[in-house]
Amino acid sequence: MAKFLRVDMSAKQAKFEEVSDKYLTLGGRALTSQLVADEVPAVCDPLGPFNKLVIAPGLLSGTNAPSSGRLSVGGKSPLTGGIKEANAGGITSQKLANLDIKAVIIEGKPADKGFFLLKITPDGVEMLSADDLAGKGTYEVTAICRERYGDKVAVITIGPAGEMLMPSAGVSNNDSDGNSSRYAGRGGLGAVMGSKGLKAIVVDCPKTFDAPVKDPERFKAAAKKFAKILLDHPVCGQGLPSYGTNVLMNIINEAGTLPTRNFKFGRFDKAGEVSGEKLAEVATARGGKATHACHPGCVMRCSNVYPMPDGKVCAPIEYETAWCFGPNLEISDLDVVAKLNYICNDVGLDTIEAGCTLGVLMEAGVIPFGDGQAAIAALEEVAKGTPLGRIIGSGATNAGKVYGVTRVPAVKGQGIPAYDPRSCKGNGVTYATTPMGADHTAGYAVTANILKVGGFVDPTNKDGQVELSRNLQVATAAIDATGLCLFVAFAVLDNPEGLPTIVEMLNAQYGTELTVDDVAALGQNILKVERRFNLDAGFTKADDRLPEFFSTEELPPHNTKFDISDNDLDEVFNF
Amino acid sequence: MAKFLRVDMSAKQAKFEEVSDKYLTLGGRALTSQLVADEVPAVCDPLGPFNKLVIAPGLLSGTNAPSSGRLSVGGKSPLTGGIKEANAGGITSQKLANLDIKAVIIEGKPADKGFFLLKITPDGVEMLSADDLAGKGTYEVTAICRERYGDKVAVITIGPAGEMLMPSAGVSNNDSDGNSSRYAGRGGLGAVMGSKGLKAIVVDCPKTFDAPVKDPERFKAAAKKFAKILLDHPVCGQGLPSYGTNVLMNIINEAGTLPTRNFKFGRFDKAGEVSGEKLAEVATARGGKATHACHPGCVMRCSNVYPMPDGKVCAPIEYETAWCFGPNLEISDLDVVAKLNYICNDVGLDTIEAGCTLGVLMEAGVIPFGDGQAAIAALEEVAKGTPLGRIIGSGATNAGKVYGVTRVPAVKGQGIPAYDPRSCKGNGVTYATTPMGADHTAGYAVTANILKVGGFVDPTNKDGQVELSRNLQVATAAIDATGLCLFVAFAVLDNPEGLPTIVEMLNAQYGTELTVDDVAALGQNILKVERRFNLDAGFTKADDRLPEFFSTEELPPHNTKFDISDNDLDEVFNF
Repeated sequence: MAKFLRVDMSAKQAKFEEVSDKYLTLGGRALTSQLVADEVPAVCDPLGPFNKLVIAPGLLSGTNAPSSGRLSVGGKSPLTGGIKEANAGGITSQKLANLDIKAVIIEGKPADKGFFLLKITPDGVEMLSADDLAGKGTYEVTAICRERYGDKVAVITIGPAGEMLMPSAGVSNNDSDGNSSRYAGRGGLGAVMGSKGLKAIVVDCPKTFDAPVKDPERFKAAAKKFAKILLDHPVCGQGLPSYGTNVLMNIINEAGTLPTRNFKFGRFDKAGEVSGEKLAEVATARGGKATHACHPGCVMRCSNVYPMPDGKVCAPIEYETAWCFGPNLEISDLDVVAKLNYICNDVGLDTIEAGCTLGVLMEAGVIPFGDGQAAIAALEEVAKGTPLGRIIGSGATNAGKVYGVTRVPAVKGQGIPAYDPRSCKGNGVTYATTPMGADHTAGYAVTANILKVGGFVDPTNKDGQVELSRNLQVATAAIDATGLCLFVAFAVLDNPEGLPTIVEMLNAQYGTELTVDDVAALGQNILKVERRFNLDAGFTKADDRLPEFFSTEELPPHNTKFDISDNDLDEVFNF
Repeated sequence: MAKFLRVDMSAKQAKFEEVSDKYLTLGGRALTSQLVADEVPAVCDPLGPFNKLVIAPGLLSGTNAPSSGRLSVGGKSPLTGGIKEANAGGITSQKLANLDIKAVIIEGKPADKGFFLLKITPDGVEMLSADDLAGKGTYEVTAICRERYGDKVAVITIGPAGEMLMPSAGVSNNDSDGNSSRYAGRGGLGAVMGSKGLKAIVVDCPKTFDAPVKDPERFKAAAKKFAKILLDHPVCGQGLPSYGTNVLMNIINEAGTLPTRNFKFGRFDKAGEVSGEKLAEVATARGGKATHACHPGCVMRCSNVYPMPDGKVCAPIEYETAWCFGPNLEISDLDVVAKLNYICNDVGLDTIEAGCTLGVLMEAGVIPFGDGQAAIAALEEVAKGTPLGRIIGSGATNAGKVYGVTRVPAVKGQGIPAYDPRSCKGNGVTYATTPMGADHTAGYAVTANILKVGGFVDPTNKDGQVELSRNLQVATAAIDATGLCLFVAFAVLDNPEGLPTIVEMLNAQYGTELTVDDVAALGQNILKVERRFNLDAGFTKADDRLPEFFSTEELPPHNTKFDISDNDLDEVFNF
């Protein structure tokens, strides 16, 4: 029977409890956001005893629905001060689902210092001291846990950044190879986990695809159909499996919306040096992999394995990470990008936030633009907890305040990702208005703006962007509830059979009679719940805005500004 | 004829302009807040081109009304993100008023780097390069300007903290002795001035008490009467003139509401070592002064001159500064307190914010509590602009985020001053609700809570605190418009002739027919204007709250928590 695992870190006790009807048909982001809204006071201190960390597999996770292994992590964000759901690939979601655990709810706060490890197996739950793991990076912690508990376990952990309560610390979990590099990175949930005194969660479950399904035959047919829908789409079936997400580098650069030198320019003349094509070439030559699945059963395999000159492996280098440490800092050395990525993975820091923060420090003149070695040296300060390391770990907005920088690319305290809002205006609407703080995944308008997936909306023109972002935000929230990777959206947007097939899988699994309209309603409801939380936490329309410089500075080469009016932005959530 | 001096720092031009009727009967805080509300977009970047810095003498400044030389400085605060009025003593207010300048409005932002000096004389205005002054501390800048332009000039300046755009940088001006130690300290307006490229404003005017008055005889009689009202009151006529504001140290300690060790305790066993009595003893023995007027014509003379062992002079050491560097840090060496105070004055940092920030760093374990030399060493990093110095300059809230500290005494991003809200609950209401961010001067309930001035309201009981704070906030806003020192309130609260006499002075000066009720209406209107700005800037009820720990941790020795409900707090502004 589906259950919650409630972990009280004040008493160091964990117990299973029945799932009430209200939560039975929720999963992933729908479940984490609903639980946070129901149980966390919106005005509480994100690092205090009243915040909770909620970890939930998606509705379809743990079945053989293709690409359905996303894990949602939720709580009140120390970075944004609002509600947060960050999701990740990796093998944890499937294991939790196969243990029939709908969510792990971590609450309270230990009175003393010290760190703990929560071990979840089919036999039950144990709370162990993790003082021997404290201070260690995520790679080492994961390796130790796999050695101690078996190499099939999933390890959720935080690095020193999370232990030090840094507002941009993430929560990692591992892929099948044991790499602790699948991150619920955004919004500082690693610091929330750190504030609870929880260093790691080990999930041991031998099964991967055996989560309960009411009608297995019907499910199998739908899952097979969905796999074909994905493989038939040019992005899901060809682009992503060839070069991974970093296939976008040249495309976004060509489109003139690649933020370069801290959002000063829209093109970087050396973008090719850090592109997916280049990455595939180098990785393959060094014995790595140009393509790789972040969790079993993914047909898109957009991940990669990049061997670094020092013998270590960075897996994967995502487009947004290649961007934030590459063009954003005017760095064109892929090995430097990989090194910065690896440091973040190990210390437990969100790469996008770290990249935006380094961009702000370069804007402030603390480090020169383009100086990869200086960027590496600065990022290495994070693990040491030096004042500079602390500033970097605090994120772009805080770093901007510390250094008096006005050109800070962030919304609601969270750094803006790899698509400039002035020439990919649909994404600009999403950055401004999503309850998550600037987040490209929350309503990925790059689809219609640049990739011409799901139609075409001129990226430099303000017309149609609000509607585009609205529809995508609603759809995304629903997808984030299913545990499906967001990238299925490419196929779903273009193939009218996509969404009905997802609904068919859900109905086969849960014995429900959902319609396509119900899925849209689910997405709307998630957004309403999240926005209500943020409203209670003190957010207003003034928080649904981009930084000033996007509307005063033109972005070359299109020389456009962000010109969507406040009134139009306020129409995004008109439902 | 009354005029505005409008200074466009984009074009480096300054011009006088006529004052429209709307602003003719406004002054001080009433004028700065109204101008900021009318001219500054509430959502703008505080350090960007759309913010303005407004400097205005009070309505009575420049006359011989006693203690009427307060200067108001306003703008959007980089520390709180809301509207800000910070006011200071010193000789500038009287000089501006005698030039018949109702306000200096500094706007725009230079495209290039470099600093400027604005020189205002009876003959006109000049904009001069100040690159030779850049990087210098306020003491040196003031000395150079007095040497260059005559030792009677008033010098408004910022230190390196303001140049470096630190969110807790203040705006200094000098006293009659040339000490650049009279600070419009709170809320980071020094950074706003720095963002405009303005290092200093020199005001040269030979007159001090000759501002235009419509009915001089009537005014003279009222002013004389008001002086007697002040001198007859035990606080204004005896307490303050004997030991200055630091007479409060032993009183507040005895009352058990002296925040000690970053608001952990309400009493400090060594409070006497940093008290006003001790200060007077040491200062006098070293040839300093136990009492001193911050501007000509003050009858309360609550300032002091403290010679330091290194031969320099710190003038004055106020109670709140002695507290924030003393009990707040568990430091009991008055010379250390003086040194920390002096460093702040010179680098151009608000002392209260710096003290709260050092408290947060001690809470984080970066510096040990009680270690004066470590505190001095840390504060000396500010002028160097090192990462630690930058963190200190960013204020308590930002430092708390950088170090993951939950016990951060601040509201709306501004550090809480020297009276613990758990056992001086009227002040707690003020801290929570004033549009200024935590500010003891905005509604100083210490009067009725502790000093039994204007009645008595039990400081540990929640009853009556909302009404007390409301009345004081309204009265304070009005007093801040007049240019009168807030300390006249002690006498005004106890003497029924006080307020009518202020009204009589205003009517004699301006030919108006104001009543006592009009003054209350003025106070209410100022608060409404300020709250409207904050609302537009994105503030909500959630911002009118104290930090979580004040309602979860009891404060010894009274062992009380802050227990005034959210609903009651929301009733403060019920007019």
